[in-house]
Amino acid sequence: PPTKLPKVGTTIFTEMSQLAAEHGAINLSQGFPDFDGPLALLDRVTYYLENGLNQYAPMAGVMALRNAIALKVEKLYGCTINPETEVTVTSGATEALFAAIGAVVCPGDEVIVFDPAYDSYEPAIELNGGTAVHLPLRAPDFAIDWSQVKQAINDKTRMIILNSPHNPTGSVLSSSDLDQLQALVNDSDILLLSDEVYEHICFNGPHQSLLRRPALAERAFVVSSFGKTYHTTGWKVGYCVAPVALTTEFRKLHQYLTFCTVHPIQLALADFINDYPEHYLELPGFYQQKRDLFCQLMKPGRFRFTPANGTYFQLMDYSDIQPEMDDLTFARWLTTEVGVAAIPVSVFYQSPPEQRLVRFCFAKSDDTLREAAEKLCRI
Amino acid sequence: PPTKLPKVGTTIFTEMSQLAAEHGAINLSQGFPDFDGPLALLDRVTYYLENGLNQYAPMAGVMALRNAIALKVEKLYGCTINPETEVTVTSGATEALFAAIGAVVCPGDEVIVFDPAYDSYEPAIELNGGTAVHLPLRAPDFAIDWSQVKQAINDKTRMIILNSPHNPTGSVLSSSDLDQLQALVNDSDILLLSDEVYEHICFNGPHQSLLRRPALAERAFVVSSFGKTYHTTGWKVGYCVAPVALTTEFRKLHQYLTFCTVHPIQLALADFINDYPEHYLELPGFYQQKRDLFCQLMKPGRFRFTPANGTYFQLMDYSDIQPEMDDLTFARWLTTEVGVAAIPVSVFYQSPPEQRLVRFCFAKSDDTLREAAEKLCRI
Ligand SMILES: CSCCC(=O)C(=O)O
Ligand SMILES: CSCCC(=O)C(=O)O
Repeated sequence: PPTKLPKVGTTIFTEMSQLAAEHGAINLSQGFPDFDGPLALLDRVTYYLENGLNQYAPMAGVMALRNAIALKVEKLYGCTINPETEVTVTSGATEALFAAIGAVVCPGDEVIVFDPAYDSYEPAIELNGGTAVHLPLRAPDFAIDWSQVKQAINDKTRMIILNSPHNPTGSVLSSSDLDQLQALVNDSDILLLSDEVYEHICFNGPHQSLLRRPALAERAFVVSSFGKTYHTTGWKVGYCVAPVALTTEFRKLHQYLTFCTVHPIQLALADFINDYPEHYLELPGFYQQKRDLFCQLMKPGRFRFTPANGTYFQLMDYSDIQPEMDDLTFARWLTTEVGVAAIPVSVFYQSPPEQRLVRFCFAKSDDTLREAAEKLCRI
Repeated sequence: PPTKLPKVGTTIFTEMSQLAAEHGAINLSQGFPDFDGPLALLDRVTYYLENGLNQYAPMAGVMALRNAIALKVEKLYGCTINPETEVTVTSGATEALFAAIGAVVCPGDEVIVFDPAYDSYEPAIELNGGTAVHLPLRAPDFAIDWSQVKQAINDKTRMIILNSPHNPTGSVLSSSDLDQLQALVNDSDILLLSDEVYEHICFNGPHQSLLRRPALAERAFVVSSFGKTYHTTGWKVGYCVAPVALTTEFRKLHQYLTFCTVHPIQLALADFINDYPEHYLELPGFYQQKRDLFCQLMKPGRFRFTPANGTYFQLMDYSDIQPEMDDLTFARWLTTEVGVAAIPVSVFYQSPPEQRLVRFCFAKSDDTLREAAEKLCRI
């Protein structure tokens, strides 16, 4: 059959992780920890597995987990939501992103995305008949150029996709970004999709969730992920917070995309969050130590960088090493010749600018980071 | 926002399970066992959970599990497939159905579905811009009327969706059905989507998988489910077998719908299937005993029925009980007044015929079946 997604190949994450495995390279490419989730959390999954909770979960998610999400959103962002009608647990944040886009994007609609953009946004937009309008984040700090957004908005603009803390650049939205977003969408029908899966990995000041602003929250799908927060990316549990009207449409998609999400894991997450409500408060410190260690170790090398403000990713500029080499070639070369896998950044752009950047994941044991930095500094 | 799916509400499964819970009714509505998966399988999940296998699985699924699937398909259906390029593990069969439809159905395409049809097919078709063409299965045996299919086929026909063993009717495709399907699609570009999630719950003779026929398999997405086979519907692990070209398109969807499926569970399933390769051979006998028990117990009552040929569902005709009552009302009445929840069958039709049918799930302990039948026979 003719392909519906001619531009789509295998994701860069699969490609680089495979290459890393084939060459025995240290895998700092695909974003996942090389350490495990909290033992108390793992034990709760076992408990529910062994106690007969292995049939379908409720379609919108286990109520105790939705309650825990609502409590957190209230506590951290001062936003009161109804867990019954405004929270949906999904099979990973990826499903939530697809469901949010699929729920509202119609043929002919435009959706504004900021490049470099996570690779799942555009295929989801296109499969729903929409067009992604790509706006580049402003180098070197990867901030949004709001005057550009203003110019890009027109009658067809259905949605703007935000992502903070930002993957792959590690930049974060400021409170003034929220002001400007609010000024732009006020009095419009534009919806927002906010990918906040790294909400708890934010280093300099609190995370600026869209949920802090009623005027933004009232038109937003806010997506997050338990995998990133509890070091369990392989469990594929995420969620979406959205006002009732948006959640109603969101669930229509969710119920036919996956119907529901792994039951014993949802129950375990709910228990763990209730038993250790402060766990995620330790995350910024935990990951900042890793970021600082990695940056410290990389100083003697020939990469240039500014420490990330959020996420567990660090961009590195290799202009002084291989100025002529494009970043996909460089990332492959790093993997096969240096023994450290990275993610090239240009693959996340519609029109990649002249820059020489790769992304390293520092969600790794200190030993792994030391070993990797040693190899990278030998270049 | 205006809804993209005006016809879609909350699924009947959620509605009836909720009603059952509220009224303390025995829940024979939504299809799931009230007993657990094999202990050896549960133990393997715990093993992987506690041994650090909690990060992303490969996008297309754990290789050992794909190998196990390919072995089974070869052994049972004589179909040699390449697990590397023709098998994809998904977050439940629901995701596989959506991905298969999303991979190939384009705006303007027609997709033939047989009513009563599982409720996820049509929304997936519509979200992809296609139109579902509904053909009723022939009463009273719920077989396909192939002459009707022939008439319905035209230049826009992109896909035919098959489902055997059939939910909700329990009918199964015969070898002669496959002959007729083959004659119809030969020399056409029509693709097939075969929902075979109850493949191992087939009572009178072997399951007629589309994979038995190379001329059908070459154009088919064949979807199955581990939840139905291993009594673990809440784990949400399914898969899709399709030729390389179709799998390539299928994975483009899968990688942006959920990316991958719960890692420790996939590893556990692979181990269990390898350790107990004969497990699913016991399923037909296991469920036939339950079907026979339930039918036996229901004989004194006023429902009329023919025992199901497959699935863990039994249709019952209530014409002699409440001839004037529509089946949704009857199913609610059964739940709230009799104390046994069932699924009305008309909700799976575009144009429900004049029939009085509800579906009971007999994937329940013998005691539950006894208790339910007792209540139902008291009517
Ligand atoms: C879903 S695999 C990719 C993980 C990730 O989000 C990343 O590496 O950016
Ligand atoms: C996905 S919930 C519905 C389960 C099921 O397949 C059924 O009851 O028919």
